[in-house]
Amino acid sequence: MRIKCTITYNGAHFFGFQKQPGLRTVQGELERILNHIHRKAGTRIFVSGSGRTDAGVHAKAQVIHFDTPFEMDGAAWKKAMNGLLQPALRVVDAIPVRDEFHARYSATAKTYHYYFHVGTQDDSVFDYDTIAYLPWNDLDLGKMEQVIQEFKGKHDFSAFCRVDNNRNPNKELFEAKMIKIGENRYCMMFYGTGFLRYQVRTMVGTIIDFGRKRQKCDSMQELIASKDRNKAGLTAPPEGLYLMSVEYGEGDVYWKL
Amino acid sequence: MRIKCTITYNGAHFFGFQKQPGLRTVQGELERILNHIHRKAGTRIFVSGSGRTDAGVHAKAQVIHFDTPFEMDGAAWKKAMNGLLQPALRVVDAIPVRDEFHARYSATAKTYHYYFHVGTQDDSVFDYDTIAYLPWNDLDLGKMEQVIQEFKGKHDFSAFCRVDNNRNPNKELFEAKMIKIGENRYCMMFYGTGFLRYQVRTMVGTIIDFGRKRQKCDSMQELIASKDRNKAGLTAPPEGLYLMSVEYGEGDVYWKL
Repeated sequence: MRIKCTITYNGAHFFGFQKQPGLRTVQGELERILNHIHRKAGTRIFVSGSGRTDAGVHAKAQVIHFDTPFEMDGAAWKKAMNGLLQPALRVVDAIPVRDEFHARYSATAKTYHYYFHVGTQDDSVFDYDTIAYLPWNDLDLGKMEQVIQEFKGKHDFSAFCRVDNNRNPNKELFEAKMIKIGENRYCMMFYGTGFLRYQVRTMVGTIIDFGRKRQKCDSMQELIASKDRNKAGLTAPPEGLYLMSVEYGEGDVYWKL
Repeated sequence: MRIKCTITYNGAHFFGFQKQPGLRTVQGELERILNHIHRKAGTRIFVSGSGRTDAGVHAKAQVIHFDTPFEMDGAAWKKAMNGLLQPALRVVDAIPVRDEFHARYSATAKTYHYYFHVGTQDDSVFDYDTIAYLPWNDLDLGKMEQVIQEFKGKHDFSAFCRVDNNRNPNKELFEAKMIKIGENRYCMMFYGTGFLRYQVRTMVGTIIDFGRKRQKCDSMQELIASKDRNKAGLTAPPEGLYLMSVEYGEGDVYWKL
């Protein structure tokens, strides 16, 4: 039986999603507790995620799946897993799905948010690892609100991923906007078919470049068209980035117990 | 020259305020970076705080002082210290004071807040170490709002501190109240002349006892009058507790550079 789980985690407590020997990762923790649950079942459990998140990046609703010989309903899986997981990683929802469902290959869209604050940093001891701090007090926020919208549409995003990346750089963004969420606090929102490794953080870093008036391109469109990673900005720090949701197509009808 | 500093820290990152060999503590970190700053001054720096906070307890505005042979103004101290401190501990304000000022003995009042939420815990991966979670969904919050107010006034708080505590148990609380701060979120506020070790968390635990309808005393006044630690509740978990401010009397006129 295949189980789909929606999970949330505080990225500050993990060395990213992907399992790595000797390091505490999201995938590693999930496989550790699932293999503990299956210790007498004579089968090894592997966890597939909708995609990797880097060290320090958070998830409000990451999606994973795994296969199990156990006949348990979603509520039982949620309870069993949360009983073994540490508080920085929780299962929000679990549900049996068809074997055709795949957390990564069935995904049709993802939403990422990037939260940041500007101004003084004094009182940040409670959120320095859950929101990014931009120390420049002359940021042109209006310019940033403008250029982020140029990401909307179908583009070749080669300028925003590593040169050695051999995945298809053509992606579509349905939405890209920046909103004010509080005193000196902002959120950049990206909703699209998929994102390449470091793509969101490089888009954010480039938007910040425009805000700092140190971007040589006149527009984001010009920069996108260049397909030149050297023209884009630095990769923005991970603590502001949240994977907010992963969407799946109509074909993934859930299999109910 | 004596320097008074107002500091803030995220208690989740420290084994409490008081220095302990081999453990990361607030006092230990402050002394470490201050002795680094004074490494060529031939003098050892000691930090005095307004009081200890336990492991996991936070501070929005703890106060400390230290003596230094250096002639630097408050802004320079703040900058020098924050340049060496890690992000979970920051200096909010620094100011030279008279030698008669003492962070602990000059303090005339303190304010503590205890933040907690009730309801489901699913999404708590971002605040499980900065707000307490009370898992009981039948808490009588009205009763809690009522009994907390009985702490106001002058009392012998022996029922709320450890039996081996040999400090004066007579304290005055100017204010004690509970307010709703958001959906399923509450704050208990305590403002008084001083607090014994574990006193606030034991008061909170006892208020929760009343909310759970498992307190045998009919009123908080009856429990206070008993002076019996065994009648009070458990010590509430540290992650909800914040030292919000420390007040000093009019006599501590600051010495300006």
